[in-house]
Amino acid sequence: MAGSIYGKLFRVSTWGESHGKGVGVVIDGCPAGLALSEADVQKYLDRRRPGQSKYATPRKETDTVEILSGIFEGKTTGTPISMMIRNEAQQSRDYSEIASYYRPGHADFTFDEKYGFRDYRGGGRSSGRETVGRVAAGAVAAKLLEELGITLLTYTRSIGPISIDYRKFERGAIRENPLAMPDREAAEQAGAYIEEMMKAQDSVGGIVECVVTGMPAGIGETVFDKLDANLAKALVSIGAVKGFEIGDGMAVAAAIGSENNDGFQIEQGKIKKRSNHAGGTLGGMSDGSPIVVRAAFKPTPSILHEQQTVNRAGEEITVSIKGRHDPVIVPRAVVVVEAMTALTLIDSCMEHICARLDWLKRFYRP
Amino acid sequence: MAGSIYGKLFRVSTWGESHGKGVGVVIDGCPAGLALSEADVQKYLDRRRPGQSKYATPRKETDTVEILSGIFEGKTTGTPISMMIRNEAQQSRDYSEIASYYRPGHADFTFDEKYGFRDYRGGGRSSGRETVGRVAAGAVAAKLLEELGITLLTYTRSIGPISIDYRKFERGAIRENPLAMPDREAAEQAGAYIEEMMKAQDSVGGIVECVVTGMPAGIGETVFDKLDANLAKALVSIGAVKGFEIGDGMAVAAAIGSENNDGFQIEQGKIKKRSNHAGGTLGGMSDGSPIVVRAAFKPTPSILHEQQTVNRAGEEITVSIKGRHDPVIVPRAVVVVEAMTALTLIDSCMEHICARLDWLKRFYRP
Amino acid sequence: MAGSIYGKLFRVSTWGESHGKGVGVVIDGCPAGLALSEADVQKYLDRRRPGQSKYATPRKETDTVEILSGIFEGKTTGTPISMMIRNEAQQSRDYSEIASYYRPGHADFTFDEKYGFRDYRGGGRSSGRETVGRVAAGAVAAKLLEELGITLLTYTRSIGPISIDYRKFERGAIRENPLAMPDREAAEQAGAYIEEMMKAQDSVGGIVECVVTGMPAGIGETVFDKLDANLAKALVSIGAVKGFEIGDGMAVAAAIGSENNDGFQIEQGKIKKRSNHAGGTLGGMSDGSPIVVRAAFKPTPSILHEQQTVNRAGEEITVSIKGRHDPVIVPRAVVVVEAMTALTLIDSCMEHICARLDWLKRFYRP
Amino acid sequence: MAGSIYGKLFRVSTWGESHGKGVGVVIDGCPAGLALSEADVQKYLDRRRPGQSKYATPRKETDTVEILSGIFEGKTTGTPISMMIRNEAQQSRDYSEIASYYRPGHADFTFDEKYGFRDYRGGGRSSGRETVGRVAAGAVAAKLLEELGITLLTYTRSIGPISIDYRKFERGAIRENPLAMPDREAAEQAGAYIEEMMKAQDSVGGIVECVVTGMPAGIGETVFDKLDANLAKALVSIGAVKGFEIGDGMAVAAAIGSENNDGFQIEQGKIKKRSNHAGGTLGGMSDGSPIVVRAAFKPTPSILHEQQTVNRAGEEITVSIKGRHDPVIVPRAVVVVEAMTALTLIDSCMEHICARLDWLKRFYRP
Repeated sequence: MAGSIYGKLFRVSTWGESHGKGVGVVIDGCPAGLALSEADVQKYLDRRRPGQSKYATPRKETDTVEILSGIFEGKTTGTPISMMIRNEAQQSRDYSEIASYYRPGHADFTFDEKYGFRDYRGGGRSSGRETVGRVAAGAVAAKLLEELGITLLTYTRSIGPISIDYRKFERGAIRENPLAMPDREAAEQAGAYIEEMMKAQDSVGGIVECVVTGMPAGIGETVFDKLDANLAKALVSIGAVKGFEIGDGMAVAAAIGSENNDGFQIEQGKIKKRSNHAGGTLGGMSDGSPIVVRAAFKPTPSILHEQQTVNRAGEEITVSIKGRHDPVIVPRAVVVVEAMTALTLIDSCMEHICARLDWLKRFYRP
Repeated sequence: MAGSIYGKLFRVSTWGESHGKGVGVVIDGCPAGLALSEADVQKYLDRRRPGQSKYATPRKETDTVEILSGIFEGKTTGTPISMMIRNEAQQSRDYSEIASYYRPGHADFTFDEKYGFRDYRGGGRSSGRETVGRVAAGAVAAKLLEELGITLLTYTRSIGPISIDYRKFERGAIRENPLAMPDREAAEQAGAYIEEMMKAQDSVGGIVECVVTGMPAGIGETVFDKLDANLAKALVSIGAVKGFEIGDGMAVAAAIGSENNDGFQIEQGKIKKRSNHAGGTLGGMSDGSPIVVRAAFKPTPSILHEQQTVNRAGEEITVSIKGRHDPVIVPRAVVVVEAMTALTLIDSCMEHICARLDWLKRFYRP
Repeated sequence: MAGSIYGKLFRVSTWGESHGKGVGVVIDGCPAGLALSEADVQKYLDRRRPGQSKYATPRKETDTVEILSGIFEGKTTGTPISMMIRNEAQQSRDYSEIASYYRPGHADFTFDEKYGFRDYRGGGRSSGRETVGRVAAGAVAAKLLEELGITLLTYTRSIGPISIDYRKFERGAIRENPLAMPDREAAEQAGAYIEEMMKAQDSVGGIVECVVTGMPAGIGETVFDKLDANLAKALVSIGAVKGFEIGDGMAVAAAIGSENNDGFQIEQGKIKKRSNHAGGTLGGMSDGSPIVVRAAFKPTPSILHEQQTVNRAGEEITVSIKGRHDPVIVPRAVVVVEAMTALTLIDSCMEHICARLDWLKRFYRP
Repeated sequence: MAGSIYGKLFRVSTWGESHGKGVGVVIDGCPAGLALSEADVQKYLDRRRPGQSKYATPRKETDTVEILSGIFEGKTTGTPISMMIRNEAQQSRDYSEIASYYRPGHADFTFDEKYGFRDYRGGGRSSGRETVGRVAAGAVAAKLLEELGITLLTYTRSIGPISIDYRKFERGAIRENPLAMPDREAAEQAGAYIEEMMKAQDSVGGIVECVVTGMPAGIGETVFDKLDANLAKALVSIGAVKGFEIGDGMAVAAAIGSENNDGFQIEQGKIKKRSNHAGGTLGGMSDGSPIVVRAAFKPTPSILHEQQTVNRAGEEITVSIKGRHDPVIVPRAVVVVEAMTALTLIDSCMEHICARLDWLKRFYRP
């Protein structure tokens, strides 16, 4: 029943529900000496905030983070870093009716089965709001990775049937359209598609992609803590994710060896792969190429559209879920995917440095 | 660097390489009282054994398991269960040339980057042979799950471009064809495809699917140890896996909410879902429906077909990898997928029973 | 570097330093359904609060706890419970001089060696204040244990050379004297001893003892997670502890087998031990007798008395540590020992219930 | 129920019982590049072997270790190291009677309470034989530590009422007398004492002490994974241990601050402590001084001397335990204490090197 702690060396412990006093996270194991302030974290939280586009719920949270410990004179001390974000825009009355039935696609039913009762207000712990803690921690992880020369670029690859065209890839476009797509044309088409679905009282899904550059080769712990295995767990743990891919993903199943294998070559005196069907890992360890991972998000479950379900009295009923709902959560999930990827990478980078006796000797007997 | 231990309560610690003395596993935390013998484990290992079909390498290992501890009078005692399988058919000379270069698609390069050197014989720890330990442990997990009313059915869903037709699904066909496909026609077509690729000195991939029935609802620990997140890690940790799906998988990205949501209904007085797009989990916990997961395997990397790579002296070379290679590993991976799924499920089932104070009180103050 | 998380199923993640914004804890894995309010926790924190006796520093903290998540309608939901206690009575100026040298007996030196710098204000993370989070979590653990019929009684067994006389043991006396001793006479003598030491500008140590009743037999996980081994770690992790004992403790070394062995007998139809030299564990598992553990606390390091040390410039100097110091911390440590014991016991109780296949079957196939 | 795995980065998984096929261990996370052979491990196992003195049971096990994986061309590869020691001198008939009753001081009763039944032959998993796996792993840990400049010296400090005199401390004496005492006179007196107790059909206990030199300061993870806390768990997890001390141990309780504090001074340009009452740790981290820990062992429970107990039918009976018993186990426990200390230290040393961002940057951006 203890599932809210992630990581082995860089560990995060998240807490908080949709309608509690707030949400937050405690990071245990952050190396000392990193310059860190609320601003570093706030910029990540701002990418997640609701109410920023016409496709997102108009819930007005400022999501202002407060760092409560672990920093001294502007730097991390190596002691636990506790961060909290108070909840502001709560409307219990939005959810009072929901207590009486099980919303399709939501965790109402499973929470009841597990615990016997649940905080029905807004989804409680299963609400998207619990990702605030992950994003705050991910901001710290990302800053550490930057110090090590590792950077992440995350964006929406597709919304419903509309995918980006990689030949029109514009990095700058990601932050400039509310769908976080690096292809302005695709963003427009996707926007039209979403409006269409909103009129039909329905919702849509999509795919988020994250590209990591700068990872040296060899990182990851075979055979169970492979880097890709941990990335899979990290991304699938995000609510609404039903598929994970690395490199060519599911498509490798229909490929042939001579085309799927990434051969090697020499580039500027270093060994580099010739292609990257593998998506940056070989044998579960980073291979020096960019790491490319994807998560597939199902359509938002809460819709006005009528649905068949059951109430707590065991009666079959038809419902239309009123209240504030996102027609698509993918754009807001972009920073969550980035955060989870960063948390996984920094943990692996920290574990890697004791792989060889020589490295330990270099440290202890310089 | 400690990545060969899996699980929280039902923990497995695997060891062994392709050309060492043997491979094995230690299970720590198996409940006491399970009837267990070598035969229970052997039948799982036999499903994995090489040399059983014309599509698998003719390496003649009997893979005979020996249980060294943890059993008394035919039952598990609750103490660690150590199992070992001696390696028999080793041919070092097959691999002597390989020590000098990096095989594309293999972990040679990444092992060298991590450790500075590697056991080059046959892939060492990154060889498929390390899965023997996982399968042996999975056999024990599967037997425990059966005692709890939970069963797994695993099969090949597709090889290359040939997929099974669910309308022709025959459970009995799985063990009767060397490709482990539940659709005899598809198995034939896939067989022809493989032979074609073998002639072209190439290899193919495929998808394995596992269906779990009998899981009660509510199992899984939000938010990071969600059941689906752990299944993702489990399956992606298997060598050659590049994609993971649960339920509709990647396809959810293009679906709409009203169709993707699984509504609820009453069936024989119990709450059941009307459909199963979710694949058996909601909010990261089992929801009472069958759990359906898939893993996509890339084509076997070792092929006779020429490839461009680099040798240890830093020179670009062309290689053709001789030796014993499987043109496709998917049929042998079926039992590995089943084992990893079983290990994940039993661990979650054990953790679940302390979710409520009432359950603890029922145990301690009956 | 990740050392602030304790437990396997009932996990606590503490945070906060002496002069940060506050201290707190996140509990992950608390079973659902426990009635819990701030009052339940506050009464434990009140036992720890400074400024309650003439032997404790007059720092006026109210240590008011706020529960931020994990509770709904007065009961734990099974989701993480975050608790925070704001710091109030901070006086940075008390410690400004200390930044320049290493106080003997304090962690200034070791923190600098580990991290390269430290939050010098009041001891930072190594200050006794970090125990607030442990005590808050321990309060929850203790309440759970009570629900299971397990209770803890903790008190000061000795201060300096003055020990309690078990023949004069009065449970009620513990909360009535500021030294938490169950022997009023000894409490008086100890009080006089402390005043004597205060006049000499010195400090004293002591021993805290905790007795657990109601633990059923069989709890603990051999061979490394034995109940006594985990209790040892739990108590020694409290600052200033230099010795741990269970049962007869160090004295067993000079005993003989025929006297040290606890024989068995039948009592009211149940098997009970005849004596309890073992202190409640056999083979690392609880044996049905009361569990008796002790922790030895060294004298408080900060004293006005002159000491020889070194400053950061590498010069040998003589110091007299001014500021607010406890001449003895043992009475305040009593609730910390109780908290750590409770945390260890509840974790073990939760893990124990999946020891037998029969118990799992009883749960899953009732 | 999963208690046979120890460590976080350097993890050991032990298995095996007194009368099973063998005992062994799997080490996961050993750094690559350490020269290792069976001989390195055998010399540690030989220090533990029964039948080497008149005070130890005449069970003739050669305890020959076989390394099954993780080594290539004489060096560790970074992959799991599996080691096995076959059981040889088994005599089931010695223990057949024991199945019917609970031996005082043994874990028969608690194993039954936990699992419902037990392998009664020779103590099964609770037999001292399970320490073989720990010692084998400890040998590897010790060799790694030596490479880092850290060494351990372990010996018997006292047997019954006879303690060594530190003024007569002779390092060379430890291996030359069967009691592993560094004081030859005390060894003689202790020997006489043991013989006396053997005649009385009784048994004795003692204290083992381990001194670690070469540990740099700053190692250990506050607040729960303090180095001393982990050492306490490590030593108390050894069967028969009832007390743990570091530095002055339990005696600190009666000390005064001005005498107990270890001041600092400059020695050869480096900061050193003036004394070592703390036993080598401050604030839970190593402080540069030798680490001094002790474990108190209770008298061996199995004695010919008559005892009162209960049989499985619930009847009170009197027993005299026949069979092969050690009158004292302390000399054989010396290498077990050393092994557990080594395992704890190497794990902490490995975790320490990612404490600072600067160290990570030095590694990733040299």
